[in-house]
Amino acid sequence: MTTKAFNQPLGGNEMPRFGGPATMMRLPTQPTTEGLDACFVGIPMDIGTSNRPGTRFGPRQIRTESCMIRPYNMATRAAPFDSLQVADIGDVAIDTFNLPKCIDIITDAYREIIRDGCKPLTLGGDHTLSYPILRAMAEKYGPVGLIHVDAHADINEHMFGEPIAHGTPFRRAVEAGVLDTKRCIQIGVRGTGYAADDFDWPREQGFRVVQVEECWHRSLTPLMEEVRAQMGDGPVYLTFDIDSLDPSIAPGTGTPEIAGLNTIQALEIIRGCWGLNLVGCDLVEVSPPYDPSGNTAITAANLLFEMLCVLPGVQRRQSNSGESA
Amino acid sequence: MTTKAFNQPLGGNEMPRFGGPATMMRLPTQPTTEGLDACFVGIPMDIGTSNRPGTRFGPRQIRTESCMIRPYNMATRAAPFDSLQVADIGDVAIDTFNLPKCIDIITDAYREIIRDGCKPLTLGGDHTLSYPILRAMAEKYGPVGLIHVDAHADINEHMFGEPIAHGTPFRRAVEAGVLDTKRCIQIGVRGTGYAADDFDWPREQGFRVVQVEECWHRSLTPLMEEVRAQMGDGPVYLTFDIDSLDPSIAPGTGTPEIAGLNTIQALEIIRGCWGLNLVGCDLVEVSPPYDPSGNTAITAANLLFEMLCVLPGVQRRQSNSGESA
Amino acid sequence: MTTKAFNQPLGGNEMPRFGGPATMMRLPTQPTTEGLDACFVGIPMDIGTSNRPGTRFGPRQIRTESCMIRPYNMATRAAPFDSLQVADIGDVAIDTFNLPKCIDIITDAYREIIRDGCKPLTLGGDHTLSYPILRAMAEKYGPVGLIHVDAHADINEHMFGEPIAHGTPFRRAVEAGVLDTKRCIQIGVRGTGYAADDFDWPREQGFRVVQVEECWHRSLTPLMEEVRAQMGDGPVYLTFDIDSLDPSIAPGTGTPEIAGLNTIQALEIIRGCWGLNLVGCDLVEVSPPYDPSGNTAITAANLLFEMLCVLPGVQRRQSNSGESA
Amino acid sequence: MTTKAFNQPLGGNEMPRFGGPATMMRLPTQPTTEGLDACFVGIPMDIGTSNRPGTRFGPRQIRTESCMIRPYNMATRAAPFDSLQVADIGDVAIDTFNLPKCIDIITDAYREIIRDGCKPLTLGGDHTLSYPILRAMAEKYGPVGLIHVDAHADINEHMFGEPIAHGTPFRRAVEAGVLDTKRCIQIGVRGTGYAADDFDWPREQGFRVVQVEECWHRSLTPLMEEVRAQMGDGPVYLTFDIDSLDPSIAPGTGTPEIAGLNTIQALEIIRGCWGLNLVGCDLVEVSPPYDPSGNTAITAANLLFEMLCVLPGVQRRQSNSGESA
Amino acid sequence: MTTKAFNQPLGGNEMPRFGGPATMMRLPTQPTTEGLDACFVGIPMDIGTSNRPGTRFGPRQIRTESCMIRPYNMATRAAPFDSLQVADIGDVAIDTFNLPKCIDIITDAYREIIRDGCKPLTLGGDHTLSYPILRAMAEKYGPVGLIHVDAHADINEHMFGEPIAHGTPFRRAVEAGVLDTKRCIQIGVRGTGYAADDFDWPREQGFRVVQVEECWHRSLTPLMEEVRAQMGDGPVYLTFDIDSLDPSIAPGTGTPEIAGLNTIQALEIIRGCWGLNLVGCDLVEVSPPYDPSGNTAITAANLLFEMLCVLPGVQRRQSNSGESA
Amino acid sequence: MTTKAFNQPLGGNEMPRFGGPATMMRLPTQPTTEGLDACFVGIPMDIGTSNRPGTRFGPRQIRTESCMIRPYNMATRAAPFDSLQVADIGDVAIDTFNLPKCIDIITDAYREIIRDGCKPLTLGGDHTLSYPILRAMAEKYGPVGLIHVDAHADINEHMFGEPIAHGTPFRRAVEAGVLDTKRCIQIGVRGTGYAADDFDWPREQGFRVVQVEECWHRSLTPLMEEVRAQMGDGPVYLTFDIDSLDPSIAPGTGTPEIAGLNTIQALEIIRGCWGLNLVGCDLVEVSPPYDPSGNTAITAANLLFEMLCVLPGVQRRQSNSGESA
Repeated sequence: MTTKAFNQPLGGNEMPRFGGPATMMRLPTQPTTEGLDACFVGIPMDIGTSNRPGTRFGPRQIRTESCMIRPYNMATRAAPFDSLQVADIGDVAIDTFNLPKCIDIITDAYREIIRDGCKPLTLGGDHTLSYPILRAMAEKYGPVGLIHVDAHADINEHMFGEPIAHGTPFRRAVEAGVLDTKRCIQIGVRGTGYAADDFDWPREQGFRVVQVEECWHRSLTPLMEEVRAQMGDGPVYLTFDIDSLDPSIAPGTGTPEIAGLNTIQALEIIRGCWGLNLVGCDLVEVSPPYDPSGNTAITAANLLFEMLCVLPGVQRRQSNSGESA
Repeated sequence: MTTKAFNQPLGGNEMPRFGGPATMMRLPTQPTTEGLDACFVGIPMDIGTSNRPGTRFGPRQIRTESCMIRPYNMATRAAPFDSLQVADIGDVAIDTFNLPKCIDIITDAYREIIRDGCKPLTLGGDHTLSYPILRAMAEKYGPVGLIHVDAHADINEHMFGEPIAHGTPFRRAVEAGVLDTKRCIQIGVRGTGYAADDFDWPREQGFRVVQVEECWHRSLTPLMEEVRAQMGDGPVYLTFDIDSLDPSIAPGTGTPEIAGLNTIQALEIIRGCWGLNLVGCDLVEVSPPYDPSGNTAITAANLLFEMLCVLPGVQRRQSNSGESA
Repeated sequence: MTTKAFNQPLGGNEMPRFGGPATMMRLPTQPTTEGLDACFVGIPMDIGTSNRPGTRFGPRQIRTESCMIRPYNMATRAAPFDSLQVADIGDVAIDTFNLPKCIDIITDAYREIIRDGCKPLTLGGDHTLSYPILRAMAEKYGPVGLIHVDAHADINEHMFGEPIAHGTPFRRAVEAGVLDTKRCIQIGVRGTGYAADDFDWPREQGFRVVQVEECWHRSLTPLMEEVRAQMGDGPVYLTFDIDSLDPSIAPGTGTPEIAGLNTIQALEIIRGCWGLNLVGCDLVEVSPPYDPSGNTAITAANLLFEMLCVLPGVQRRQSNSGESA
Repeated sequence: MTTKAFNQPLGGNEMPRFGGPATMMRLPTQPTTEGLDACFVGIPMDIGTSNRPGTRFGPRQIRTESCMIRPYNMATRAAPFDSLQVADIGDVAIDTFNLPKCIDIITDAYREIIRDGCKPLTLGGDHTLSYPILRAMAEKYGPVGLIHVDAHADINEHMFGEPIAHGTPFRRAVEAGVLDTKRCIQIGVRGTGYAADDFDWPREQGFRVVQVEECWHRSLTPLMEEVRAQMGDGPVYLTFDIDSLDPSIAPGTGTPEIAGLNTIQALEIIRGCWGLNLVGCDLVEVSPPYDPSGNTAITAANLLFEMLCVLPGVQRRQSNSGESA
Repeated sequence: MTTKAFNQPLGGNEMPRFGGPATMMRLPTQPTTEGLDACFVGIPMDIGTSNRPGTRFGPRQIRTESCMIRPYNMATRAAPFDSLQVADIGDVAIDTFNLPKCIDIITDAYREIIRDGCKPLTLGGDHTLSYPILRAMAEKYGPVGLIHVDAHADINEHMFGEPIAHGTPFRRAVEAGVLDTKRCIQIGVRGTGYAADDFDWPREQGFRVVQVEECWHRSLTPLMEEVRAQMGDGPVYLTFDIDSLDPSIAPGTGTPEIAGLNTIQALEIIRGCWGLNLVGCDLVEVSPPYDPSGNTAITAANLLFEMLCVLPGVQRRQSNSGESA
Repeated sequence: MTTKAFNQPLGGNEMPRFGGPATMMRLPTQPTTEGLDACFVGIPMDIGTSNRPGTRFGPRQIRTESCMIRPYNMATRAAPFDSLQVADIGDVAIDTFNLPKCIDIITDAYREIIRDGCKPLTLGGDHTLSYPILRAMAEKYGPVGLIHVDAHADINEHMFGEPIAHGTPFRRAVEAGVLDTKRCIQIGVRGTGYAADDFDWPREQGFRVVQVEECWHRSLTPLMEEVRAQMGDGPVYLTFDIDSLDPSIAPGTGTPEIAGLNTIQALEIIRGCWGLNLVGCDLVEVSPPYDPSGNTAITAANLLFEMLCVLPGVQRRQSNSGESA
């Protein structure tokens, strides 16, 4: 039984799913994280992107497409709204005309968001945003472990001469010392590069780099067992770039690369994070103008719910029958 | 200067237009009409439609596309947020599996909404909804005058044997005695019919019927002068079916008819309502799945703002220069 | 009252408009024109087109989008199914791999179609098809008058060296002697050309050429009065290229040209043909892959119905009231 | 060699695939099932749906996209038109304004359709329709076995208080006693739920429930061997909800759930039904307005053909060479 | 006859229009303006935009959709390639991560482009770009007259606190003294504003401001006669924001406003510039991701061709017949 | 380090990826193959297609979507621009109104292209084009081995009575003696057929035919080992029909068949060609009008780059670290 002390998503028997507030999962909204264990928060930003824009509309569209998600996870029986207080706190007011300023705006906002321990689940926005979030995370938790799911390593020295862009956040994060580099893994990287050794740099920093070819034709559940060992008990941040997925699954993104992960593997990765000391998660690079079917935003909304389901403190309801328990 | 006593739309200098709450014009939301002069309210419904569905998503999409509307009307200098308290009160929880029940749900909801005199601006939803709203209106104000802008007269005796559907609301309203039939006008009707005399029935009830051919190639400002005379000081309800507009302007609707009104004429009609004793307005039949460009919802959002601008009590700021004052 | 001797479109009270057979107006189908006064017939062809393809799907899509058309014309009160026997006879089986062969296939098919006087209303298909139809027409009726509504004059000497293509049919028709060149008019031509005098050639043959600039900002009803005088009592063929319309109205076509006619003018042209000795009509160049809103096919379906409404022998029901009679 | 006694789909060498009648596989149409061994029949209905509408256009679009299917199955060498008389009998005329009435309309229609043993292959339409079909099936055949492929169990007690909707048909069917509950299986269910034990109810009734996680990364051919054993010789009904498939494959549906079955598994399921005593099949929840690529309808059309290929009485032609025989 | 000294667009009889180089009008390309009288040049930029992005793809899409434009203007008989040397010089390499830097990059690029008198026809890109172009223009020509066609005045003091953005270029240009403010006109402005007197500021600077309401239902040819008088013989810059057009015509733009100009009026404006001392033109705010029909880019390409046709030095071929000469 | 003697794709740090020339990979263009080791060349053709058209726009769209491909292959470390001179030589000027003529135009063009040993990578265009290319190949190299990846065998005797169409090229090639039939393989064929033994004919000619069912649920790397043994050292031509892929991956094609190969398998096939004596490759049947997400063209562009990476003479850079080397 749900105790009414916790916020609940608005149900389909109270308001048709095509109506009601356009918040994440039709949850209540509040302006700060006061009293919250976890929150959904948007960063409507795309000026860090190097090819197709549109991720500025990511948060709005993910919320819209989250309307059908019900409160229980049928596979894991996770019941996040039984034990966590969760709300949608709206968007960070970035300055869309000035990318460097956005970095400080975001770090400032996240200092507030996480001050009392609330775990933010961020709706992106382009991948530039992970760097300023990680800065705030490290201030509170010390250098964090990183599970980075992406088609690209995002460790460029610069882009068009600029240090801040969506291809550089993890180079900047390493330089700023906000990552525990032995507890960092990149999963799904692939495609073409400016140099044949682009993926060697993170390895030299101590990251594990799992190119997509290692993931083909197999379950990633065994990999996640290794990842849990790598991460240990320390704080971990999960950053999930939707372009890690195959373009057939997630067309709505700015820099798609063919032959990516599938949604099953995405779920195996996120569900495989259960038990980790997750301090925050983001889901980035959803670009609605390139998402004619809406599938990218639907997938993103579900993955964010799955992230919520593996946060520390979430309970799983017991099954009393059946072969899939 | 705006006095801060009135709600204001969230501005683009506080939050980028692609972020912030997905309420109408990014206004504050509240659950009832307490303290409000006017409200935006959605009816997410399409089960009364006879051809293409999708208007259930009309309220959500109109709100989304309203994000760019600023608080002043540059043409009329109307300043609705200077003198009216306005909010978005969300959606009516209709029963999407039972059309007859919806009729009573809606009438009940509107009794509450208008009890203290709040003027509802309704985001539809299929045209069936005007009948239950008009019932509530007549209970409070007596039979009302009607300005009905539409491609169809919506006065069928029945559809597929059913009395309630989106092609019958004004036949039902006449029968229920909720209209002041001498103060009713239909503008823009056209297309094909089941009988050559379909438009004769409303005329026989006392309606003025202006077929679209009378509107071609001309301004409707002179017509609206006549309409104001027809309506007098009595209560008037404005119902605007987006399919009154040409399909090139409003493709996102369920039963499009070619050679319709243009947006200029739509503005002339609504702006021509200034001075009338409007007691409520609706904008219906926006079907987002059929609106690839988004123009239909953008147009609907702007027309709803224009309706707000002509409600009784809205002031117009004075110009101190220029040829367009 | 309709006498049951004539085919009637399947009505929305017998079968929802989104169901039933996908024939034109949901009329009965039959394989030949036996017993018919008029027929709808498709030519699913696009290999004559010089830019975007897709008109091969024109007939199928026009039929699909015709499902909402009711049997009476509310503006003119025309009642075609009161006095004409009409059916959809399906498509001409063209050879899509061989353009020259198609010309003969089409002429052969139309010889059969019109043998007993049936008036074909053709669903195109690229404009190449008008030439082989006109050959069949002239065999039966002698050289015909031509009302040609189009963005392009389609009188090229050749295209890429080929005599048969969608830019040449009326040059070929003049050369073949199948047109009564003094009774030919082209309306709506515009855009850019290979030579500044492209439109002079048809004028030199005796055609009247009305460039679109002459049509801007005005009703074409006065022009049609002149056209009726020009056409007299002789046989007239109406060919309507959907690209005559503005691209905002008819995006789904292969060679769009900006600043075209509007739908009001299209109706004025077709309704202005009432009283002429029409022997056939076509509606060409609808390309569904370029019609995301579906408006092009909807417009085409309605224009074909309006053509049916002005065929010789169609009666108009009398009004007994009202200002629009 | 095909004996001409059996209807054949219209071939591409007689009429280009983009032309011809828009019936299923371009088969002949007839109004009843007289003389038929199997039929395709549409139920153009979406008023039972809880989220996105549009399945009312499912039958029309599936037929349109079936135009390219040729008569032989290259994988199984099934030759359905060698031994079965098959036609498209059009659509059931549902009352789109009244969901409860539709239930009786459908049961009545199917009583007629199956009276003489014709096997219906139904083009949906929302999943509500399976309940009234099953009522007719049980009247003729007694309680039937059920192979139910779906993302959702569709066994809700009610939706928004209503007993009839697309989330309740199999609860209603169990209650009505029309299912042989020991011979029922649900395959592919997943996603989020209102309670963590939503899938326990069908198990308690005796159903086998195979959650999608059990299907990941593997062939379903072994599962189908078990299913054939479970079903035995009794009558079996196959209901295939297109949302069982991953949204990347079938975006055009109303309630998509991520990480679903793939098309290979869909074929393994259907081909795995060969040898069963199938008495009918349906393919539901195709919503064309949400299918920008058309793939959902194409997939549905092909799956319906595969269903035809496993009906009792269909022969498979022998191979005389090759490794894939 | 064309003398071969001048570049010619690649013709459809040499290469099908769907092939060949994707340059503007399939013209030759060269890296600088050496030897050119006029050039097409792209600025692929959208980081100055406040709502929907995507204009970074404007230049690429306009070029793609220009493939069908032939060398002669059939309405005006202008023959630009008879007397001007024209090429496509590609794109300005802006820094998409740094808006302020872009301003200097653009001014620097245009200093080079216009140094020897070449007239640039710019393919935008967001409207921010007009300010740095005007700086280069004024350096060479002194303060210029401005014909500014737009839905917005673009004279904000700042946006989100920033001086450089697509809502501020003409405020900045006035402040920088690069405009001859008595020879400035804004045509088509409309919509909603942050203050009721937003349009008063440009009037106070000396601009003529023609709100769209003054343009409704009429030809703009008379207005352009007045504009030519206002501009006199001095240098004039034409900046055309595609959002001046009605959204039904130009959906593919970032900040659409309803009830705009139509394409006929756009042509009247541009053709009305014939005889002016035009020193450059731009066409901005085409956002391909929001242009499902492609019409916006098609319209932009044609308007750019019409701009070329009114540059000083373009001749018009004489007609020798006909009523439209 | 790259030696500057070889053409390089224009990099993202020199010009944003959304700008610059719309050539393949933003490579330099030249009119002939003089001095080239390999070239990209387009054949903008779709008149050989039997169902949906649009491949005429394939070359243009593949080039547009190639803009993001960087010069190194991160999986294989292939560095094609280190050792090969590569350019985009534009399109073959086919006669779109005459299919038989196109055959000779293409053979003539390829004789020139390959005369000095340049390896063409062809951007299609419908599959008809492989036959005339193979004729040119055999003239220079003798009968070639064939790796044919496709959903269809394309060995029809004729289509609608015509010998030349996109369903016949490999029947014609066998008849013309241009294939070394013992070194021919077809991979991925599937779907429905006109006869149950359609795939037996190529087997009878000596081809290996791998139906898609043999590819399901497995890596194709082992198959490619067998293919390399089959092909030996002789000249090999690779023809890749994008419809070999599953429609979820490649919706933008004319004759999609469900349950196809995935992109991983496509990469395994192409990468498995490393070491073969490839003399040319084509990628055909990309139809942009049916590719709303753009994924089909993106996939095609990447597969063409992967083909370049396995041409004879391409070197692979060594890794100095890491588990994926």
